[in-house]
Amino acid sequence: MNFARRMEKFQGSDIQQILKVTARPEIISFGGGLPAPELFPVEGMKRAMEKVLDEAGSKALQYFTTEGLVPLRKKIADRTNLRTGTDLGQENVVIVTGSQQALDLAGKIFLDEGDVVLCESPTYLGAIDALKAYSPRFVEVQTDGEGMVTEDLERQLAANERVKLIYVTPDFQNPTGVTWSDNRRRSFMEVVNEHEIPVLEDNPYGELRFQGVTPPSLKSYDEKGNVILLGTFSKILSPGMRVAWICGDEDLLEKFVYVKQASDLHTSTLSQYQIDAFLDMYDLDEHIAGLIEVYRHRRDVMLTSMDEFLPEGVDFNRPDGGLFTWAVMPEGVSSRDVLTKAIENNVAFVPGDAFYPNGGHENTMRLNFSNMSPQRITKGIEILGKVMESFAG
Amino acid sequence: MNFARRMEKFQGSDIQQILKVTARPEIISFGGGLPAPELFPVEGMKRAMEKVLDEAGSKALQYFTTEGLVPLRKKIADRTNLRTGTDLGQENVVIVTGSQQALDLAGKIFLDEGDVVLCESPTYLGAIDALKAYSPRFVEVQTDGEGMVTEDLERQLAANERVKLIYVTPDFQNPTGVTWSDNRRRSFMEVVNEHEIPVLEDNPYGELRFQGVTPPSLKSYDEKGNVILLGTFSKILSPGMRVAWICGDEDLLEKFVYVKQASDLHTSTLSQYQIDAFLDMYDLDEHIAGLIEVYRHRRDVMLTSMDEFLPEGVDFNRPDGGLFTWAVMPEGVSSRDVLTKAIENNVAFVPGDAFYPNGGHENTMRLNFSNMSPQRITKGIEILGKVMESFAG
Repeated sequence: MNFARRMEKFQGSDIQQILKVTARPEIISFGGGLPAPELFPVEGMKRAMEKVLDEAGSKALQYFTTEGLVPLRKKIADRTNLRTGTDLGQENVVIVTGSQQALDLAGKIFLDEGDVVLCESPTYLGAIDALKAYSPRFVEVQTDGEGMVTEDLERQLAANERVKLIYVTPDFQNPTGVTWSDNRRRSFMEVVNEHEIPVLEDNPYGELRFQGVTPPSLKSYDEKGNVILLGTFSKILSPGMRVAWICGDEDLLEKFVYVKQASDLHTSTLSQYQIDAFLDMYDLDEHIAGLIEVYRHRRDVMLTSMDEFLPEGVDFNRPDGGLFTWAVMPEGVSSRDVLTKAIENNVAFVPGDAFYPNGGHENTMRLNFSNMSPQRITKGIEILGKVMESFAG
Repeated sequence: MNFARRMEKFQGSDIQQILKVTARPEIISFGGGLPAPELFPVEGMKRAMEKVLDEAGSKALQYFTTEGLVPLRKKIADRTNLRTGTDLGQENVVIVTGSQQALDLAGKIFLDEGDVVLCESPTYLGAIDALKAYSPRFVEVQTDGEGMVTEDLERQLAANERVKLIYVTPDFQNPTGVTWSDNRRRSFMEVVNEHEIPVLEDNPYGELRFQGVTPPSLKSYDEKGNVILLGTFSKILSPGMRVAWICGDEDLLEKFVYVKQASDLHTSTLSQYQIDAFLDMYDLDEHIAGLIEVYRHRRDVMLTSMDEFLPEGVDFNRPDGGLFTWAVMPEGVSSRDVLTKAIENNVAFVPGDAFYPNGGHENTMRLNFSNMSPQRITKGIEILGKVMESFAG
């Protein structure tokens, strides 16, 4: 049987094979990006569903508009404005089936084969996965502890004629945990405001801030309607429900609606009603405060353990929020070799080279701290430190 | 801003604009393909959700495998085997976010720009919409009251080098309501079994049979693993929940899993658990028997009204099930002109040319009978008949 040429890029990854073993209960996994399930609002979601089926009834089970439920879109717009300095109305919000769908739709809308996507280095693996279906060339822009380096962004814009999309995660990035400084945001947007290139500002983790002040979103500095801001309920309510959103100018959202209709008609009516009812019935801020307390503690335990147990020469980030930190081992050490040995000792993580669309950086790794208990985090990092030591010098 | 070339094909359709008015309550709409909401199992879905959140709890709100919930996949395989003569296991089933997603994924997997899709003439509008994102050429195969004409299929296979996909809806087709005869199924599959070309057998309506016996699926005659059978809960439980499935050989489903993971990670965990619990708690056959009773009556009322009120020279189909019938007016009469005047008189339908990927056939129309009461069906067809008369010769 013949497949489309793009399917050459869709092969089973060795990482997925390796991480399958991490589902075993004895494994201490820093590998996935899973929220802590014990914090999910199970009872609240039950009450919300009861209310929806008692009150909206059959409407909540019928086909729906592609744009999504208006009261939910209004709540998302209001919350985004309050948190990130934007000025959005419900007409600037379209509901999607998880942020992953937003990435896929963006690829469909903007990318012809051979077009260039600019991204941070490293960048989110799921974005690479979604966009590669449209056969672009990924050009990594130099990125440091303050975000994407503006001078290199300008250099790459000048050097590449076919830049059709810029993908960034300025808040508690997956994989590094880095948050862009406000200065860097401003200078990035000064450049973007001189072009007509769409920017996907992916922000799934921004609400999980453990300390400090939330900086304005890139979207809040957007003068031309270039920025499409992505958000999701996955990290603040439930990832399994697959409800997320796109914020942008109306004429641009119209394109998303066309292609979303062709991709899955609309996002689950029932899930949209259910989350909207939950937001009416419960205090989301209070719920998120509970998440932050737990995740902050887990981050603290992880960083303290990394200070104590990781060998000299291993650097790592100290994120102010989110779900991840990032470690860099000395040049020449392969995180895949470390992973193989770590799994033999019941510890797992994701090798960092997976987050570089053009490869390299085999000495890096992503570590998730949200899904394991503090005790297991300490134990897992201790084991990881010993494994790393066995690869030293 | 620059868009991908494929976006030239995604413009707002005039039909969508026209049909927007059909949401007005005074309109008698034969336009959509909506199930009757008064038949949705609202109370059952509530109880199922309560059971899931009480018993599975946080598991039902967490990220999930792309393949989907194993017990649900097992139930789907068993039911499909029993109904359509297949021999599937749970490993032959992948859950998707509505059948529309399956169509999009199939396009992604099989189609390069300029490849040929063979389809019935007419064919399902949503399939055209999903597949056109991959820029194929649609070649319509001659289709009559027994299904796709085998001789013309052979002719088109011989005439077109780059046939990469065959899309068909053999049971109560959308838009015509036609069901393929068993003879036609066999001869179609004799041809298909000589090739290595994937066949999408889309079957959203097969369970809504008002009379007669369900014929074996194309998949049941599949000797090479060419056939991918699509099914959905949209027409038998709830379209708003967006839960459907793909059945096929495991190695082919692996491709679907890769691209689905890149498209939306997985289908709602909660919705999968909820439907699985519903199927444990309630008798789906009994529920469907209730739907059939109502829809059969509505079809009868529509056909009787068409016999009574439509002018001479208008032909129409007498489907044994599903949601639609199809009318053909004399050559030269434009269903768009008829629609404009019908809407002025508060009646709507979908002009039939929308279902021909290469245009033409302006004298045809699709009529849905599932979403209006018998009284409104009679009244609407009476009005439609008068409007048609005003266009007669």
